[in-house]
Amino acid sequence: MTRGFASDNCSGALPEVLAAIQQAANGHQPSYGDDDYTRQAITAFQQLFDTDVAPFFVYNGTGANLLGISAITRPHNAVICAETAHLHVDECGAVERFAGCKVLTIPTFNGKLEPGFIRNHLRGFGDQHHVQPRVISISQSTELGTVYTPAEIKAISDLAREHDMLVHVDGARLANAIAYLGVSPATVIRDAGVDVLSFGGTKNGMIFGEAVIFLNPSLAAEVMYTRKQMTQLHSKSRFISAQFLALLEDNLWLRAASHANDMARLLAREAARVPGVTITQEVQSNEVFAIIPGEIIEPLRRDYFFHVWDEDAREVRWVCSFDTTEEDVIEFTSLLRSLVD
Amino acid sequence: MTRGFASDNCSGALPEVLAAIQQAANGHQPSYGDDDYTRQAITAFQQLFDTDVAPFFVYNGTGANLLGISAITRPHNAVICAETAHLHVDECGAVERFAGCKVLTIPTFNGKLEPGFIRNHLRGFGDQHHVQPRVISISQSTELGTVYTPAEIKAISDLAREHDMLVHVDGARLANAIAYLGVSPATVIRDAGVDVLSFGGTKNGMIFGEAVIFLNPSLAAEVMYTRKQMTQLHSKSRFISAQFLALLEDNLWLRAASHANDMARLLAREAARVPGVTITQEVQSNEVFAIIPGEIIEPLRRDYFFHVWDEDAREVRWVCSFDTTEEDVIEFTSLLRSLVD
Amino acid sequence: MTRGFASDNCSGALPEVLAAIQQAANGHQPSYGDDDYTRQAITAFQQLFDTDVAPFFVYNGTGANLLGISAITRPHNAVICAETAHLHVDECGAVERFAGCKVLTIPTFNGKLEPGFIRNHLRGFGDQHHVQPRVISISQSTELGTVYTPAEIKAISDLAREHDMLVHVDGARLANAIAYLGVSPATVIRDAGVDVLSFGGTKNGMIFGEAVIFLNPSLAAEVMYTRKQMTQLHSKSRFISAQFLALLEDNLWLRAASHANDMARLLAREAARVPGVTITQEVQSNEVFAIIPGEIIEPLRRDYFFHVWDEDAREVRWVCSFDTTEEDVIEFTSLLRSLVD
Amino acid sequence: MTRGFASDNCSGALPEVLAAIQQAANGHQPSYGDDDYTRQAITAFQQLFDTDVAPFFVYNGTGANLLGISAITRPHNAVICAETAHLHVDECGAVERFAGCKVLTIPTFNGKLEPGFIRNHLRGFGDQHHVQPRVISISQSTELGTVYTPAEIKAISDLAREHDMLVHVDGARLANAIAYLGVSPATVIRDAGVDVLSFGGTKNGMIFGEAVIFLNPSLAAEVMYTRKQMTQLHSKSRFISAQFLALLEDNLWLRAASHANDMARLLAREAARVPGVTITQEVQSNEVFAIIPGEIIEPLRRDYFFHVWDEDAREVRWVCSFDTTEEDVIEFTSLLRSLVD
Repeated sequence: MTRGFASDNCSGALPEVLAAIQQAANGHQPSYGDDDYTRQAITAFQQLFDTDVAPFFVYNGTGANLLGISAITRPHNAVICAETAHLHVDECGAVERFAGCKVLTIPTFNGKLEPGFIRNHLRGFGDQHHVQPRVISISQSTELGTVYTPAEIKAISDLAREHDMLVHVDGARLANAIAYLGVSPATVIRDAGVDVLSFGGTKNGMIFGEAVIFLNPSLAAEVMYTRKQMTQLHSKSRFISAQFLALLEDNLWLRAASHANDMARLLAREAARVPGVTITQEVQSNEVFAIIPGEIIEPLRRDYFFHVWDEDAREVRWVCSFDTTEEDVIEFTSLLRSLVD
Repeated sequence: MTRGFASDNCSGALPEVLAAIQQAANGHQPSYGDDDYTRQAITAFQQLFDTDVAPFFVYNGTGANLLGISAITRPHNAVICAETAHLHVDECGAVERFAGCKVLTIPTFNGKLEPGFIRNHLRGFGDQHHVQPRVISISQSTELGTVYTPAEIKAISDLAREHDMLVHVDGARLANAIAYLGVSPATVIRDAGVDVLSFGGTKNGMIFGEAVIFLNPSLAAEVMYTRKQMTQLHSKSRFISAQFLALLEDNLWLRAASHANDMARLLAREAARVPGVTITQEVQSNEVFAIIPGEIIEPLRRDYFFHVWDEDAREVRWVCSFDTTEEDVIEFTSLLRSLVD
Repeated sequence: MTRGFASDNCSGALPEVLAAIQQAANGHQPSYGDDDYTRQAITAFQQLFDTDVAPFFVYNGTGANLLGISAITRPHNAVICAETAHLHVDECGAVERFAGCKVLTIPTFNGKLEPGFIRNHLRGFGDQHHVQPRVISISQSTELGTVYTPAEIKAISDLAREHDMLVHVDGARLANAIAYLGVSPATVIRDAGVDVLSFGGTKNGMIFGEAVIFLNPSLAAEVMYTRKQMTQLHSKSRFISAQFLALLEDNLWLRAASHANDMARLLAREAARVPGVTITQEVQSNEVFAIIPGEIIEPLRRDYFFHVWDEDAREVRWVCSFDTTEEDVIEFTSLLRSLVD
Repeated sequence: MTRGFASDNCSGALPEVLAAIQQAANGHQPSYGDDDYTRQAITAFQQLFDTDVAPFFVYNGTGANLLGISAITRPHNAVICAETAHLHVDECGAVERFAGCKVLTIPTFNGKLEPGFIRNHLRGFGDQHHVQPRVISISQSTELGTVYTPAEIKAISDLAREHDMLVHVDGARLANAIAYLGVSPATVIRDAGVDVLSFGGTKNGMIFGEAVIFLNPSLAAEVMYTRKQMTQLHSKSRFISAQFLALLEDNLWLRAASHANDMARLLAREAARVPGVTITQEVQSNEVFAIIPGEIIEPLRRDYFFHVWDEDAREVRWVCSFDTTEEDVIEFTSLLRSLVD
């Protein structure tokens, strides 16, 4: 099937990931995380973040966010996030149902929270009638393809500390953010004061699998039970861990993300040249948001499925993947141009 | 690593499954179930059960059981199952937490419920103080390696109907049961009056993935939302579906299970010849339960990890897999014999 | 203790209610709703709404809202309400935790939703990633003391019907709204298309107790179990029912509310005369919202506790009760005036 | 209506309780626990248990048990109790739904757990597949009318401590137990190592209201939020507190319970004289369990409603109340005798 720009979830898998699965399939291994691959993957994450993090492997992004959030909340807590946050918009209310928490949302311009926006929602502490704000959750990179600098995250985590709150990062596309920033994972996560991180794998070339990383392992004391109860513990655990080992080896995860970012920048540049097309968000990761002429949306979608982000504004979203090629981009933007002409 | 007898979760994956993943990894596909593989897999399951079932693909067995159970219950309901049921013993309370239901357990001799055992628990209907029994959940094959005949399941589902209840089957090892019975899936599931089925994939040679099969699709009207909310919807859905397509093709699933069953029978026969070893359950699937001399348990576990089922009774569990060989069995039983001598 | 204007929850109880409790305390009665008082109270509510409603008596307003909402939702649903709704702001996340639903809020000018505001939030139907909007919940009277006309409610329920949604009314202060409107309960509830109603008792002179009224009894088929499970079934049920019988007799509930409304209007009129005081919401029930000089807030609260609604705007809330007297109002507004001078 | 023996929930209210409500109804008071009555009632409970307990007032027994249990558990925990425990049998699955915990039950002879029974269920600690036992819940007095000695409770709490578990007491009928034992509340609760207690009010002559007592206030740090979220916070809090103040004054609670106990002993003695009647449990509180001739059950229930405890065994339950008179007992047992003759 044609490679398109609907979502990085529509791409297949990295060859190295496929090879790792093939190799891990041999012989027997203990199940439920007692296998050699999982032990190695845990070590690999500890090296990556250069601290004694506690990683928990899970199936998918919703599971990762939910496991991280429920580990650090009680049901009377509130989670504060951007109005565009995946955990608010695209997880069918998982946080409310399973963590029991209220999700309080804040409108943003570009998907990024700022201390000034948040401060106004830090209310009701100690009032028994009100949910108690406990977690600020940000997405890095955001659902609008933008990226927080380490300093911006630090400012948010400083604010959180002031109120005895914690910081959660939905890093389904963390690789794209770090590839863009060109800093170390330790800088943008550990040093910026993040407490819990969903580390994405699937969108970046894995078959399935994500990791929840607790920067402070003491927060994770009971997480193994919650992971099991929450249906996120894989029996043949080696198959997630082996994929992560492949991804982390020689910075494959960053190379893959970097390529996707490059393709997005190319796509934005080419699309911006088409009359009537306006790029609406800074392209800092692998996503491009654009306003395009309303009458070409359907014709364009005939060949390439993609999401219309805002019907009224005729704003669309295009996403590049590890396997997007320059030819894919040129072919797509040529069609775009030809429809406009 | 040595192939052992700890669990079928310790085995790797069938070559056909690995090939299917490899092949499915090419190109882009719509995500979240809109892909070609998923469409084909749905059709394959409808053909398998020879009726218009509604299959939902999920990550794992706990997820499958929980999704099936919550679709057909409200939180004030009760689920009745055997004391040995996986959903009671080994899912860390997922049903209670997420379906909200009480799990009422019944002791059995061999893991199999019987109408006579159940009838006594069908109480409190219409009494607002009492949870309302709504589901009888059985495991086929059971956690003790035994298998219900279609007539036995029919008797249970008839009882359920009498009380406006439904029948759920935990079929994590359904393949082993059907391979043993030598009847069609339609006979043992559809005709026996089952309403919802967890159809196992992982233990039978898949990397990951199970299916929840609603025999009556009208019960599944809102399941797609619950699956997402419950963190069990895979984005790159093709990778579960493709594995199932490989498994269902040319009855691979039954051949794999049949082989594991054969190995279990061989293991039981060889072990039974060792002095001091007593097989405690009829070997009808791929599991063997045996009482063995207490003093050899630890020496034997030095080379082969397996579960001690009942510490006091010195009863142990051995499980065979699709990849267990006759040599594996002979080597193991030889060690067993040598330790006894 | 001085009668103040903090909340109608700070008032005691109507003499008729106290007499009813006293009288009901004699002798034995069946428990859990099988008593004579409860039967009579059910009939009284059916007469009040002139249709075969199903009333369920509960302890408090949060319990009433939660029971009503959970009866008509599944956890993947969303409840739409005003940003000021009690169930969003003041129930510590009960809906999220126990119904499992997401609460989607809409800003309003005066606490009242309008179809135009709501329409924009009726999205994502049929999309498995999104919570499914199922209930529009309005407060009558609102938390800002305003009142919907029957036609305004009808417009909302018509919109709900279009999308296969239901209408819930938080009627903690329904009496005040109906006293203001001067129409029958059937007009403003039944004819306006309301599906489920929390009918307030406590704020209107009862010791404790509210009623959940299902306009369509078929929605309530399993509510008796939920009420028990949700800790809202009273054993000595006669004591809630007897209070409601007293309240409904000779329209005591409307007379009490009407008096409170009158006092609020008097209070608003007197306060408005004080320089620097601006009444910010139309006074249609028993609540008065006013902007007052910032420097008198604390002095005034030394004698009379009340809530500062909006710190920045210096907006405060004053509430009148069934037992508020003209003297109370004059004394309070005199103090207000003297502080300003 | 005739005073019967169905349940202490069928009795009305103590005159002192009614007077307290009447008196408390005067004037305004802060709501939600900030009132004078609540402050005094908290102090009264601290004096009663002679230690700095943290009391939380709630509406009913199910609410009290649920609030206490959820404060000291996480959803992956298990609660261990007797098979006859009210929280297992009669609360419609509230613990499972709202605490999320699994309830593990143990059969007993007389409603009383013993360390020897419990020990066998203290399994699976540290195993991620298994719910983690966290609370042992006992009823004092039990649902079978029997009473634990302080030493028996101490033995259970010692066992709990060994496994880092806590002890919860369902004291819906604690008054009857303490009246029977003739020891101080501090002896049977504080000194016996109880962590959380549901202190009953309703069955002992209150209109409504129970208290959750945390012996170790540090366990209650977040309970105020849970109480609100769980719908158990009363707005007009004075009305629960005032009743408790009346109950605790001059040991009214013990006098009322003692009287009910006396009536139960009388009833047992008189009934035991009737041919064919066998008292089946030691009468240590206000409940009598008896096997009676099957053919008189229905005739007797025509005049006096009561529960048939065990249909097959023809075992019935009779309960005495604070307002049961000797004449009531004699009249009832005379009818019993006349039906047998």
